[in-house]
Amino acid sequence: MYLIKVKVTYKESILDPQGQSVCNACHQLGFEGVRDVRVGKYFEVTLDVAASEVDETVRALCTELLVNHTMETYTYEISGISEVLA
Amino acid sequence: MYLIKVKVTYKESILDPQGQSVCNACHQLGFEGVRDVRVGKYFEVTLDVAASEVDETVRALCTELLVNHTMETYTYEISGISEVLA
Repeated sequence: MYLIKVKVTYKESILDPQGQSVCNACHQLGFEGVRDVRVGKYFEVTLDVAASEVDETVRALCTELLVNHTMETYTYEISGISEVLA
Repeated sequence: MYLIKVKVTYKESILDPQGQSVCNACHQLGFEGVRDVRVGKYFEVTLDVAASEVDETVRALCTELLVNHTMETYTYEISGISEVLA
């Protein structure tokens, strides 16, 4: 069993209005040191496949479902989780 | 200058309907090995403060703006970024 942590963000060239509004809110709350904010999606996927298939499955999941490739880019981390037997 | 990576997820006890619908979609696409999906928010914040203030500033940002403490929990990573002088 594996825990996959996927971070999805906009590509650099894409405008991030949500990030800009969070950045403005930071300034209004007095956080003057905030220079830029990028907002993205975060997924934690529990995956039960053979070790040899994990990487390929994660890439296929991101390609087919989790990421909009026109506008977004992604990174992921794979960590093994030992099953807690009842 | 620092790059702060903040991952915000629902607390374990909170139902995650968005995660469940992504999980169902995974199964419909044939990814039978997916056991669970949790969906959260991801922020990349560029912060220009003194080294001694970084940690405290990040916690205050999360407490006051980025995280809904009733339902969400968060983790963050701090990495230094050297300023590229024009």
